[in-house]
Amino acid sequence: MKISELDTPVLLADGDAVERNMERMAALAGNAGIAWRPHAKAHKSPAVAKMQIAAGACGICCAKLGEAEVMAAGGAKDILITTPVIGPSKLMRLMQVANQATVSVVVDDPSNIEEMDMCAHTAGVRPDVVIEVDVGQGRCGVQPGEPAVELAKQVMQADWLTFKGLQGYQGSIQMTASFAERSRAAADALGKLTATAGLIRAAGIPCDYLTGGGTGTSVIDAAAGGLTELQPGGYLFMDARYREIEWDDGNKTPFEQSLTVLASVISKPAANRCILDMGLKAVSSDGGPPVPLAVPGARFKFAGEEHGELIWEDGPCRLALGDKVSFIPTHCDTTVNLYDRFIVTSGDDITNVWDIAARGRLQ
Amino acid sequence: MKISELDTPVLLADGDAVERNMERMAALAGNAGIAWRPHAKAHKSPAVAKMQIAAGACGICCAKLGEAEVMAAGGAKDILITTPVIGPSKLMRLMQVANQATVSVVVDDPSNIEEMDMCAHTAGVRPDVVIEVDVGQGRCGVQPGEPAVELAKQVMQADWLTFKGLQGYQGSIQMTASFAERSRAAADALGKLTATAGLIRAAGIPCDYLTGGGTGTSVIDAAAGGLTELQPGGYLFMDARYREIEWDDGNKTPFEQSLTVLASVISKPAANRCILDMGLKAVSSDGGPPVPLAVPGARFKFAGEEHGELIWEDGPCRLALGDKVSFIPTHCDTTVNLYDRFIVTSGDDITNVWDIAARGRLQ
Repeated sequence: MKISELDTPVLLADGDAVERNMERMAALAGNAGIAWRPHAKAHKSPAVAKMQIAAGACGICCAKLGEAEVMAAGGAKDILITTPVIGPSKLMRLMQVANQATVSVVVDDPSNIEEMDMCAHTAGVRPDVVIEVDVGQGRCGVQPGEPAVELAKQVMQADWLTFKGLQGYQGSIQMTASFAERSRAAADALGKLTATAGLIRAAGIPCDYLTGGGTGTSVIDAAAGGLTELQPGGYLFMDARYREIEWDDGNKTPFEQSLTVLASVISKPAANRCILDMGLKAVSSDGGPPVPLAVPGARFKFAGEEHGELIWEDGPCRLALGDKVSFIPTHCDTTVNLYDRFIVTSGDDITNVWDIAARGRLQ
Repeated sequence: MKISELDTPVLLADGDAVERNMERMAALAGNAGIAWRPHAKAHKSPAVAKMQIAAGACGICCAKLGEAEVMAAGGAKDILITTPVIGPSKLMRLMQVANQATVSVVVDDPSNIEEMDMCAHTAGVRPDVVIEVDVGQGRCGVQPGEPAVELAKQVMQADWLTFKGLQGYQGSIQMTASFAERSRAAADALGKLTATAGLIRAAGIPCDYLTGGGTGTSVIDAAAGGLTELQPGGYLFMDARYREIEWDDGNKTPFEQSLTVLASVISKPAANRCILDMGLKAVSSDGGPPVPLAVPGARFKFAGEEHGELIWEDGPCRLALGDKVSFIPTHCDTTVNLYDRFIVTSGDDITNVWDIAARGRLQ
């Protein structure tokens, strides 16, 4: 089947570019002598997770317990849940996942550790626990230093939990435009994490697992040393916004943009504009409007939930009714979450379909 | 089951308020002596569509062919597709839906009419056709007046299409803050539609079906006369933004806000703020941040795809880990599209579950 035979709007993944991105990340981590555990929140697809493992990833990250359930059912063997899992109902679900796969989960609160220990005991499973340290993002995470050491001691004393190490993720610097500034901020975040690990070791607790980092700092984190595991998600598809930030290598993005939404012209209300079948329900807007490809001079504007508009300020719209236009999402994660499957392409051919089985798994 | 027993984030519909909103719309249209055909893009649920029909709606609107397929399979008998359906692949799917239900579809282009006539002939079905007139939104639609008359003539000459009437929807005025200004704009839009219908009748073509309007202008359109059918979608759940605009009746919104997202506190990183499990994947951001309920003094901020933050500028956060907070979405349609089901509530009880079977049906 050919791309031209697909109904639209449709989510396309360039299978060759995705493969190359996986190889690049494997090389980046391999050359640094560290592991990589890609974030499944980016694709929500057990099929893609399998490919990442085949390419050398040590396991996967999940943002939500519900994602982890789908990934474990789909064959993932080693899962880190990167967001705290709170309350008995979810903790009991966590224990069921831990019966199917090696599961680690982040914590940042004493009462959560206590409750998790109790749930683990009642279920007779022993999850790994990773302490989330706030290395600068100001979101979840215990403060670096003594507060983290205290939590580590508490986990060590919990009969049914195994202390695995630390997570430090600085999400707010991943798209810092200046490479130098991003490098400084990444070094600062990393310093907080490694200093905390040092304090924990000084307290007599082994702490040789440090996981974190994102796509924007992946090159920096790999070169710096310190982390034992990278957590990149976006490298697979690469948001259009990654083009706007500075990179070290002659400013070439280290990974390819591999995800597009294909839309069709459904109305031509005026000579210099056309209406597409792609609105807010077909591509996310939280990172800004998507970037149109191969329509020079055209500006895209959302026109509601179901419609988008291309406008040419200096000349006529040359597209006909039914013509198709590709767009690169500015935020791939939230766009992927709108679809049930990736249509996988190689050139003009459809080569595969990857189910987005964990789409909408918010809980 | 009680609301407190649900995992979060979860989409809640107040079943009693939804019922009352349906009764109000039925009364509004009934008192005006016109029909109402609610827009299923708002709920994407065949179960809700059935309730609307039971409450007196004459049928439903669908924004996309894919929605219409799900609604027809779910038992809807009379469907208007409010967006042009372009190209042979989709037109052939349209004919299959027209085999299951009474289907009408909007058109605004001669080549689309020609192709639709041919597809209808090959499939041996005869869909109803509604000409979409651009009454001011500048999105889809033929220009009012002669261009619309020409299209009507073309539809009349097409052997396999039945001309049903006109659609005029002015989406861009639905949230105009001033009631007087909104009324003037609605009258202007309506004038274009009725004048065009007059020209079509003057050309000897019967034209007694005029469909359009939205929730923001529903009171105005019903009072004005002219439309024979209202197309409200948002009245069912009522975006938080509808609170911000002016209404005629002592400024009380004519319908109740009945949709909420329930989120939980998953981290308490500082005394004056907490992190929730609701981010960009759990509530839409395109209408602005959602409005928190029952947390006075707190400001909500998105903190990524999976997290949200509540911040108290003047005092401590009194919520504990695991506590739940309700939010009213600023844009219900795009929020509903993130979920697979509504959990239906009455007070604190769970009374039903409505599947959002057409979620993600973009094509």
